[in-house]
Amino acid sequence: MTAPGKDKDIDSARAARVKALKSTETAVAMSGRTVTFGPGEPLKLASGDVLAPLTIAYQTYGTLNADKSNAILVAHALTGDQFVTGTHPVTGRKGWWSELVGPGKPVDLDRFYIICADVIGGCMGSTGPSSINPETGVPYALDFPVITIADMVKAQAMLIDRLGIDQLFCVIGGSMGGMQVLQWAASYPERVFSAIPIATAARHSSQNIAFHEVGRQAVMADPNWRQGHYLIEDTRPEKGLAVARMAAHITYLSEDVLHRKFGRNFQDGDAPTFSFDADFQVESYLRYQGSSFVNRFDANSYLYLTRTMDYFDLADDHGGVLANAFLGTQTRFCCVSFTSDWLFPTAENRQIVHALNAVAANVSFVEVASDKGHDAFLLDEPELFAAVRGFLGAAAKRRGLAPVKSGAE
Amino acid sequence: MTAPGKDKDIDSARAARVKALKSTETAVAMSGRTVTFGPGEPLKLASGDVLAPLTIAYQTYGTLNADKSNAILVAHALTGDQFVTGTHPVTGRKGWWSELVGPGKPVDLDRFYIICADVIGGCMGSTGPSSINPETGVPYALDFPVITIADMVKAQAMLIDRLGIDQLFCVIGGSMGGMQVLQWAASYPERVFSAIPIATAARHSSQNIAFHEVGRQAVMADPNWRQGHYLIEDTRPEKGLAVARMAAHITYLSEDVLHRKFGRNFQDGDAPTFSFDADFQVESYLRYQGSSFVNRFDANSYLYLTRTMDYFDLADDHGGVLANAFLGTQTRFCCVSFTSDWLFPTAENRQIVHALNAVAANVSFVEVASDKGHDAFLLDEPELFAAVRGFLGAAAKRRGLAPVKSGAE
Repeated sequence: MTAPGKDKDIDSARAARVKALKSTETAVAMSGRTVTFGPGEPLKLASGDVLAPLTIAYQTYGTLNADKSNAILVAHALTGDQFVTGTHPVTGRKGWWSELVGPGKPVDLDRFYIICADVIGGCMGSTGPSSINPETGVPYALDFPVITIADMVKAQAMLIDRLGIDQLFCVIGGSMGGMQVLQWAASYPERVFSAIPIATAARHSSQNIAFHEVGRQAVMADPNWRQGHYLIEDTRPEKGLAVARMAAHITYLSEDVLHRKFGRNFQDGDAPTFSFDADFQVESYLRYQGSSFVNRFDANSYLYLTRTMDYFDLADDHGGVLANAFLGTQTRFCCVSFTSDWLFPTAENRQIVHALNAVAANVSFVEVASDKGHDAFLLDEPELFAAVRGFLGAAAKRRGLAPVKSGAE
Repeated sequence: MTAPGKDKDIDSARAARVKALKSTETAVAMSGRTVTFGPGEPLKLASGDVLAPLTIAYQTYGTLNADKSNAILVAHALTGDQFVTGTHPVTGRKGWWSELVGPGKPVDLDRFYIICADVIGGCMGSTGPSSINPETGVPYALDFPVITIADMVKAQAMLIDRLGIDQLFCVIGGSMGGMQVLQWAASYPERVFSAIPIATAARHSSQNIAFHEVGRQAVMADPNWRQGHYLIEDTRPEKGLAVARMAAHITYLSEDVLHRKFGRNFQDGDAPTFSFDADFQVESYLRYQGSSFVNRFDANSYLYLTRTMDYFDLADDHGGVLANAFLGTQTRFCCVSFTSDWLFPTAENRQIVHALNAVAANVSFVEVASDKGHDAFLLDEPELFAAVRGFLGAAAKRRGLAPVKSGAE
């Protein structure tokens, strides 16, 4: 039994922690734009649960035109966030799609208005497992409801409503972002003029579920995870999350790029140290990927967001026939895959194209030759850039959007 | 500070643990055959260290003929051991190569004498990190020297010497076992009449090193690992080792076989539970693979043996030219790969064949069509079995071995 005085100490330490967590939450939210939906506007989830209140943290770039017809929604991937371009307020690094999005770039800020929201379940200001649960006054942790890609998209639709935008000119994203693109086209076909799903799949494969499960088990195996309550207990499952990230990171690359970048090069000199230090450069690189990740990502968000991808199966939601998800669609699609992507290989992307062809949708497909693996969608890939620029240009013409005055197009 | 009485308690608990560990070690060793090399016969390691005394636990099957010319050395893979066929004394399960090795089987016990030794660094009776270090009286843990594939093979050569066998009729093994086969052919060409390296490589790839590093980090992240001293501290890094095994296990399979076996099937019913339970069959399968592994394998052995594979680079030991490892070889080779093996893909196996061709060695190469991934080498694969049976039959004829009387060949 603990002495009453000690109980009081624990209580006040806990209160201080909640206060600190709340102020961090506020600071993150304040670093960008947010909208909040109160208890009167609950988000009804696929699980049957509801989420309220709900905050969505988002960023916008460029200028919305008068008839609000030039808005592009960017959907981020598993560990991405709303800071697409510019300087990230938390990490101080460039936004994750700075190469693709900007004035004069393939997603041209001189022409389009870009919206990107931190997904629900995330950890960059939108409501997620690290948010304070209003019912308990402490972070949700595993009391946060398990969400789906459809739930994420539903929340984004609430944001788009709030912004007064009827139809998005385009929804674009890679990987988990690509799943959201497909879900948008399936859930709100009339609100999506064009769609660019990149390096993605209409359902998460068995092998990908397996890799995600390894990551989740690595997090949960860390005693500092505390059954999810690490925030209130002021610990962090850093080692477990780092292992999860290391395993995942290998799947984002390719054997070719690893061989080209690191081969069997030793970290120091040209002989082994006969130890368990990071002898090879590839080990040192992976350890860095793991340790830097834990500074910017929340472990419970990692559990929830990997789960949304595992659950994603668009055909299953439409009687087992993927084409049914797109019946009668007027959306114009551009699907992109990468030759060396073994996480979301071309065959998976091609299944989306086949389903779209089956309903006579307007679809183009580009398989980009790259040795950079799944991560290619985040990198400076000229073929990807040319495809996005060309497709958006043609779609903009069809939509009747004014060309940029500077003639940068 | 601890009271002196408490110190005594700790000391006696420690002594009891050492006693228990010693008796386990003895029991494991007694379950099969062992040889021990005393301090007068130290094993000089690649690192410059020496290992002495050295125990090698091994099994033999079949009958050695009068001129000792029918001996086949089987080299086991990362988590294998000397119990090739029959019932495993520890797990109670069938030996790991029971399908391939037996009377009338491709490696025919009616005809050949089979030797298989637990590798040094292993945990099934041969000296390894869980053995008692004679200098300290407690298990080596990380005081065990870091070893290499060449060291393993050197130890096996000591065993073969002790058994009075001059030349092995064949050395056969898959994966890490295949690395040992190549090392045997390179280190002791005159002692290897024929060699069957299966699903292996002459050097461990960058991606494979990366996966091993994830596994090691998972083990080391487990606080029960205790900087390697878990045996004496009577804990076990079971969660970390299970995560390592789960990640590795995915790499042993193929996307195709995972899809065929599990697909996206739910464990119970046909809908998600919206939780972090093992919702999908593939998750449940992986968790089982992880949890059953920790009962039969030692965590430090896992660190040491993965390291031997990472360090393996046969070309590097021969001036950077793989062919130099086999200059003037008289050994007959049969190399085997599997179409769906992405850990040791056909291209890696073919490099061995190219090097052997470059020195005009006698080599045949079989790429077996299989969707079972790397694990195919352990399974009932008719094409593999036909290749091994045919190659051994022809080599036996060339070696002048008497055919089996029963005509089972």
